[in-house]
Amino acid sequence: MKFEVTILGSSSATPVYNRNPTAQLLNCNEKFYLIDCGEGTQQQLIKFGIKASKIDHVFISHLHGDHYFGLIGLLSSMHLNGRTKPMKLFGPEPLLDILNLQFKHSDTILKFPIEFTAIQAEQPSLIFENNDVTVETIILNHRIPCTGFKFKEKKRLRKLLVEKLEADQVPLEYYPLLKRGVDLDLPNGSTILNTDYTTDSAEPKTYCYCSDTIADGSYLNSIQDCTVLYHEATFLHDLLERAIFTHHTTALQAAEIALNTGAGKLLIGHFSSRYKTLQPLLEEAAAVFPNTELALEGVTYLI
Amino acid sequence: MKFEVTILGSSSATPVYNRNPTAQLLNCNEKFYLIDCGEGTQQQLIKFGIKASKIDHVFISHLHGDHYFGLIGLLSSMHLNGRTKPMKLFGPEPLLDILNLQFKHSDTILKFPIEFTAIQAEQPSLIFENNDVTVETIILNHRIPCTGFKFKEKKRLRKLLVEKLEADQVPLEYYPLLKRGVDLDLPNGSTILNTDYTTDSAEPKTYCYCSDTIADGSYLNSIQDCTVLYHEATFLHDLLERAIFTHHTTALQAAEIALNTGAGKLLIGHFSSRYKTLQPLLEEAAAVFPNTELALEGVTYLI
Repeated sequence: MKFEVTILGSSSATPVYNRNPTAQLLNCNEKFYLIDCGEGTQQQLIKFGIKASKIDHVFISHLHGDHYFGLIGLLSSMHLNGRTKPMKLFGPEPLLDILNLQFKHSDTILKFPIEFTAIQAEQPSLIFENNDVTVETIILNHRIPCTGFKFKEKKRLRKLLVEKLEADQVPLEYYPLLKRGVDLDLPNGSTILNTDYTTDSAEPKTYCYCSDTIADGSYLNSIQDCTVLYHEATFLHDLLERAIFTHHTTALQAAEIALNTGAGKLLIGHFSSRYKTLQPLLEEAAAVFPNTELALEGVTYLI
Repeated sequence: MKFEVTILGSSSATPVYNRNPTAQLLNCNEKFYLIDCGEGTQQQLIKFGIKASKIDHVFISHLHGDHYFGLIGLLSSMHLNGRTKPMKLFGPEPLLDILNLQFKHSDTILKFPIEFTAIQAEQPSLIFENNDVTVETIILNHRIPCTGFKFKEKKRLRKLLVEKLEADQVPLEYYPLLKRGVDLDLPNGSTILNTDYTTDSAEPKTYCYCSDTIADGSYLNSIQDCTVLYHEATFLHDLLERAIFTHHTTALQAAEIALNTGAGKLLIGHFSSRYKTLQPLLEEAAAVFPNTELALEGVTYLI
C-alpha cells in the first residue's frame, strides 16, 4: 500500500523565494490528505503536476496564516472547476466562520459540501478513520491552540498463499476468513490453520506531523515509535531563546525528540526565512539523529 | 515624474502555471500603490525583487477571491517583518471584517495601523489624493459590487528657465509664484510675465484600471481619454455568451472600449485559465486597437 508524503511548502511565517508556507500532501493507498495549506498551496500543486481534485481530506493544524491562508483559494478553485464531491475538513472551530464569511461576500454558494469537524486542542483524540488509516490529534504547545496529526495505517489483512491453497483445494469461500486470521474447524473433524495458508502483513506504519510547537516534551507520548516523524525545526540551536519566545523548536531539539521517541526517520521543516541555505539545519539535527532529512518542496518521502 | 505599472498577476478566477491571480503595482513618483492582491502576490513581489515595505496604499476592486485572497498574507508578513508605518487600504466595506476575523483568531495585534476607506460601488467618487495623484473610482458592472480605479497625475508646476532668470537677476523669492503661473506687477511699474521665465509642464497622465466587468458601456464616461487603459479581457470573442453570462469582457470588446474612449494605449489581462497561449487574445484586440499589449507578469509598462 502506498504511504508517502509530498512537501508543498516548507517555510515558516513569511514566504521566501523558493520556499512557500507550510503544506504537505499525504498519499495513503491513493487517497490524498492535505495537511495544512499555506498561501500559494494551489499554485504549488499546479507546479508539481498534482491534481487538486484528488484531495478529499484537509487537516489544518492551527490558525496562523502560514498554515491556512491558501485554503480559501484552494476551495474556491475547486468550486470554479466544478467539484461536487464532499470535502472533509478538520481544523480549529473558527476556521469555518472564516471561510463562510469570505464565501458570503463573494456571493459563492459552493457546488460541493464541506463536512467540517472542529478540532479541540485539549487532549489527543481520534478524529478520522477509514479502511486505510486512522488520524489522531497530537496536542502541541504553541502561542495559539495547535494540533499535530498522527496518521496510522490500519493493520492489513493477512496475505494468502494462493498456490498452496489451490494445491490443497481449499474452497474459495474460506479465503476471507483466513485473511482475517481465523482458523476453520471443518465438519469432518479436520482444522484449517490460517497460519498454514497465509502470512502476516507488514506492521502498520505511522506518520506524525508536528508543527508548530515549543519542544516541551508534553506530546512525546503521542508520537512514540512512529515510522516517519515530521517535526518543525524553525531555528538553529544558537537561537534557542528566540525559539522558546516564539514557541518554536530548534533543529537540535527536533533531533532529540526523534531520538527519544524512537522515530524511524526525521523530516525537518518550517524553516525560518533567515536561512538562505538549509544545510546547517540538517547538519545540526543529523549530528544527533543521523536519519534526518530536510523537507524539500516538490520531494516525495516514503513512509 | 515616474508613472508606471508592474504586473504581478494576470490570471482570472483560478491560477494556472506561470499566471497568478490579479495584482498590479503602480509607481507614481516613487510612491507605490498596489491594485488588487490575488493569492500569492507576496510571493510575486519576492520573485520580482520588489520590497513589499514600499507599498503604503492598497486598492481592492471587489471581493472575488482572485482579487484579494493574497491581502491577509501580505499584511501578516508586513507585521512579522516589523512594519510600523500606516497602510492606507481602500476596498468594499466587508473587507475589514474579513481581515479582522483572521487577525483575531491568529491572536495578531498588528504593529501598524490600517487606515481603511470603505468604497461604495454606486457612483464614481474621489477616494484619495496627495501631491502626486488623485484616485477616483470607476463603477463597473460585475456579479458583485466592483469598482475600477482611475489614477490621474496632478498637473505639475511650470518649469523655471533658470539661466534666463539669473541673467535678468530676478529675485529668488519670485520663483515660487512664477512656477504657479503668476505674473508679477512690480512697484516700479514693470511686469514680470511668468511665460517669459517658465515653460508649461507636461500634461497629466491617467491610468485606468477596469477589472472585472461586463462590457456594457456604463462606465465609459469615467475612462475617457486615458493615457493607458488596463481592461480585463477574460475571453476571446467566440465566447461572448460566456463573457456576458459571467459578467466579463472579450478581447475584442476591450479593444472597442479603448477605441471609443480615445485611450492612448490598451493593456489587456485577467486571462481565462483555458488559454495556454495569449497571442490569440492580443491579435483579436490589436486588430481593432493596434496599440494593445498583453499584461505580462513581471513586466513594467510606462504610462
